Amino acid sequence: MTTALSHEVLTERHRPHLDQALEAVRTRAYWSPHPEHPKAYGDTAPADGLAAFEALRGSRFELDQPGTDGWTGGEVSPYGFELGVEYPHPDVDVLLPAMRAGMGAWREAGPELRALVCLEVLARISARTHEFAHAVMHTSGQAFMMALQAGGPHAQDRGMEAVAYAYAEQVRTPLVAGWSKPQGKRDPLELRKTFTAVPRGVAMVVGCNTFPTWNGYPGLFASLATGNPVLVKPHPRAVLPLALTVRVAREVLAEAGFDPNLVCLAAEAPGEGLAKTLAVRPEIRIIDYTGSTAFGDWLEANAPQAQVYTEKAGVNTIVLDSTADYAGLLSNLAFSLSLYSGQMCTTPQNLLIPRAGIDTDAGHKSYDEVVADLAGAVDKLLGDDARAAALLGAIVNPGVKERLDAAADLGEVALASREVTHPEFPGAVVRTPVIVKLDGMKPGAEAAYLEECFGPVSFAVVMDSTADALDLLRRTIREKGAMTVGAHTTSAEVERLVEEVCYEECAQLSLNLTGGVYVNQTAAFSDFHGSGGNPSANAALCDGAFVANRFRTVEVRRPA
Amino acid sequence: MTTALSHEVLTERHRPHLDQALEAVRTRAYWSPHPEHPKAYGDTAPADGLAAFEALRGSRFELDQPGTDGWTGGEVSPYGFELGVEYPHPDVDVLLPAMRAGMGAWREAGPELRALVCLEVLARISARTHEFAHAVMHTSGQAFMMALQAGGPHAQDRGMEAVAYAYAEQVRTPLVAGWSKPQGKRDPLELRKTFTAVPRGVAMVVGCNTFPTWNGYPGLFASLATGNPVLVKPHPRAVLPLALTVRVAREVLAEAGFDPNLVCLAAEAPGEGLAKTLAVRPEIRIIDYTGSTAFGDWLEANAPQAQVYTEKAGVNTIVLDSTADYAGLLSNLAFSLSLYSGQMCTTPQNLLIPRAGIDTDAGHKSYDEVVADLAGAVDKLLGDDARAAALLGAIVNPGVKERLDAAADLGEVALASREVTHPEFPGAVVRTPVIVKLDGMKPGAEAAYLEECFGPVSFAVVMDSTADALDLLRRTIREKGAMTVGAHTTSAEVERLVEEVCYEECAQLSLNLTGGVYVNQTAAFSDFHGSGGNPSANAALCDGAFVANRFRTVEVRRPA
Repeated sequence: MTTALSHEVLTERHRPHLDQALEAVRTRAYWSPHPEHPKAYGDTAPADGLAAFEALRGSRFELDQPGTDGWTGGEVSPYGFELGVEYPHPDVDVLLPAMRAGMGAWREAGPELRALVCLEVLARISARTHEFAHAVMHTSGQAFMMALQAGGPHAQDRGMEAVAYAYAEQVRTPLVAGWSKPQGKRDPLELRKTFTAVPRGVAMVVGCNTFPTWNGYPGLFASLATGNPVLVKPHPRAVLPLALTVRVAREVLAEAGFDPNLVCLAAEAPGEGLAKTLAVRPEIRIIDYTGSTAFGDWLEANAPQAQVYTEKAGVNTIVLDSTADYAGLLSNLAFSLSLYSGQMCTTPQNLLIPRAGIDTDAGHKSYDEVVADLAGAVDKLLGDDARAAALLGAIVNPGVKERLDAAADLGEVALASREVTHPEFPGAVVRTPVIVKLDGMKPGAEAAYLEECFGPVSFAVVMDSTADALDLLRRTIREKGAMTVGAHTTSAEVERLVEEVCYEECAQLSLNLTGGVYVNQTAAFSDFHGSGGNPSANAALCDGAFVANRFRTVEVRRPA
Repeated sequence: MTTALSHEVLTERHRPHLDQALEAVRTRAYWSPHPEHPKAYGDTAPADGLAAFEALRGSRFELDQPGTDGWTGGEVSPYGFELGVEYPHPDVDVLLPAMRAGMGAWREAGPELRALVCLEVLARISARTHEFAHAVMHTSGQAFMMALQAGGPHAQDRGMEAVAYAYAEQVRTPLVAGWSKPQGKRDPLELRKTFTAVPRGVAMVVGCNTFPTWNGYPGLFASLATGNPVLVKPHPRAVLPLALTVRVAREVLAEAGFDPNLVCLAAEAPGEGLAKTLAVRPEIRIIDYTGSTAFGDWLEANAPQAQVYTEKAGVNTIVLDSTADYAGLLSNLAFSLSLYSGQMCTTPQNLLIPRAGIDTDAGHKSYDEVVADLAGAVDKLLGDDARAAALLGAIVNPGVKERLDAAADLGEVALASREVTHPEFPGAVVRTPVIVKLDGMKPGAEAAYLEECFGPVSFAVVMDSTADALDLLRRTIREKGAMTVGAHTTSAEVERLVEEVCYEECAQLSLNLTGGVYVNQTAAFSDFHGSGGNPSANAALCDGAFVANRFRTVEVRRPA
């Protein structure tokens, strides 16, 4: 292939990272090739990234993809201004067939070259991390540092992890095998066999508002690395980060000699419901979705022609039984509740606390004391407006604000939400979290705590005992699902019981986090995000199950 | 554990085979630990196996499983006699909860011990291969030698292959990992993480009439090895081979210190439709099914709480373009059409032949000559009744005989089916295959050749050209599915085009088979059975995708 991005060039550039990623998912030790520190991207990166973002504002985002029947847009930054970017609107009857045109050559490229092309895409995205950070910040409402880290290196890590799993899965079967079966005194039966990973068809990624890149990259790269064209349907409020991603992917594909239409954007017109239309198209054979339970359930039931991977709503619980580090517990939990205004699928919602209180290294603490101390820890963490804004980010959309406002009526307010003035963006809606007291032993309170209340709302649920808390934990995971579970205990027996619930109901558990690791954060290559085994998600990021069904293996056998 | 079957004993006995199986699926070279030759099982094995089978006849098959509310049976050998065996009929409201009781200990056993226990089950089944051969023969109608090989070692190979894949998938993630994330000048963040493979829930295996063990073992052992209890719901005409299997599994589980109720039998009363009742029970989280498209589609649509693996109907095609070994082509194809009276999901049905004939090493052969020569080859192969019976076996059920009888009316009969008198079992219904000529360019003929006509019926379909044949092949796979595709050609270009169709439509291809390997046979550890990517089956035997969703991984992390 006469291309600047030859297999050889890409091998030299990215094969070491692929091998390190494969080793990391095997050992689950810490590893990342994408730096978290903003300064790691060079002295001019901050200014360049901001300038690149500013240049995009008020422009048409040209992608030169086939089947464009108009332009659409309308993103408004949660920090209070219109982005003014317009994206091509697809004529799917033209676009979908065009996306299939390059499938043969992409299949023939084989697993390694596909993986390396994907890693080149990620490397170019990584180089523009500051630009992506502004795009993520001004669509999701994340604070800048979080947008840079979660929307940049962490998302890139998850994309690379998916590439590694996809590659490993495809090369478990060799490309060629000789087969010789003994036949006693007669000559053996001999066959030559070839095995080819073949794609399913067009994959659709349905992006979400809060983590367009972090939640979008695993499916995007898993499908692309297994040979499938990928159509990216972003959330209408968070198009820009994925449009930039699509543009980079198209550039790299073309430079590597492949059809750029293997990756296309499907931006929707306001209120169009394009994902629903696309989901039932026969060309769409894989769907990755992050969002509401209602639409996730709809996809699972109504797109039988596709493999459907969903991350939906859940109700995350922290069980408080006892602790050897009360101050650490409070500061860790305060941070978890505050980060990105609780707008993470992994943020704890229900804090289950025994009516008799908990034993701590600072003495016994009653239920009321624990709640008051937690409220105090949040207050202290968010006391300064500038610091609060840098942690909270902005409320992503009016729905979250409505839930926050309504939460105060659900029970006794232990910590009221307050408005924070953003030092740089006065138009941003910034709010501190509310903590509401509920009685978990009174059936009437279920209506509040057994539903996901997405946003900066948590419930300090009093329980008669830790045993009751574990019963409620089990019921919550089974009926509502959970992306995360946390527990604090100094008792080996309670620890064992919590683990047992999580094994039986299939939820990821963090125990006694009191330092700089938070229950709502997972690290690619080491932690699983979700389990895929409870109602909050039918897949985990990332494991063999996430990639194994995105391709099939076709065997051709002939006499040797 | 104070048990005769300790982890240590099982390791010594079976770990080498597990390692060899893992290596075989990686290289896809020939390997099997289960001998095909009947004499390999010892001098007394034939008589012992027959005696064991005879002792089962007319008896109650005690299993000592909970929730038995009566007895049911009624199997009739396709060789013309009643088996007279009665099986426990389950009260599923009692049985299903009882099956869950042992899940915790089975989960805690971990992937290696579970795999070794499964291999002990297979080893004990292997030792009784002759007994199983009679059970398979007198439920499926397979001839004795095929019942022994396909129902014995080949089925055991497929079971072991599933165990190997299940084990490999679970140990891709380590049991324990240390994680240390650098924090610049501060202390690193350090966590200790454990990863546990957790089961989905009760798995149901829905057996088929023709290959109760071969098609049943992959799902059974894949689910059991990944920690799930397995409920075996056999086809009512083929209960005995799976009842024996369940009994052996229960014995081994108990001896190894586990709850025998991890494997139970669900024999159904006549006309009960038990699979349909069980499929929608919330306890059933995995379903493996082999059978009709209608019920397979029903399962896929109506059991959303379960992972559903189906092998359904398909229409298998052989494309005849040209050959360098005409005699070999004829004898190979005649054997494929005759083996087990065409009652295999892999038997070719549509033979696509150009109207202008084909070039061969024996000169150009017209369409009529090819068909006549193939008819002659089948006639010669089956000329002697004893030899014919040993290859054909018996017609498995009245439905197959009805289709066979009706086939003669579908077109010009090139080879008529004839009755064969079985030398040992005069009550057996034994028939040779029919070959019917159809014109593939006339739309009216589609009604015949575009439906699966399961049994000893094949269509010699004349096409205007090989290009037309490839178009029909593509359409057949896409619309009806195919477990196998075969082609004969001396043209590199035609070979490439057939491969392209199989890559694009996702079907397994055998090229130019003229010797002792047949398109309808696949070898475990090397060949994939089905692709999982066309309408005939949604899974392949066996690959990562077949096992990866049978368990989930729960992570527990805590400060190091």
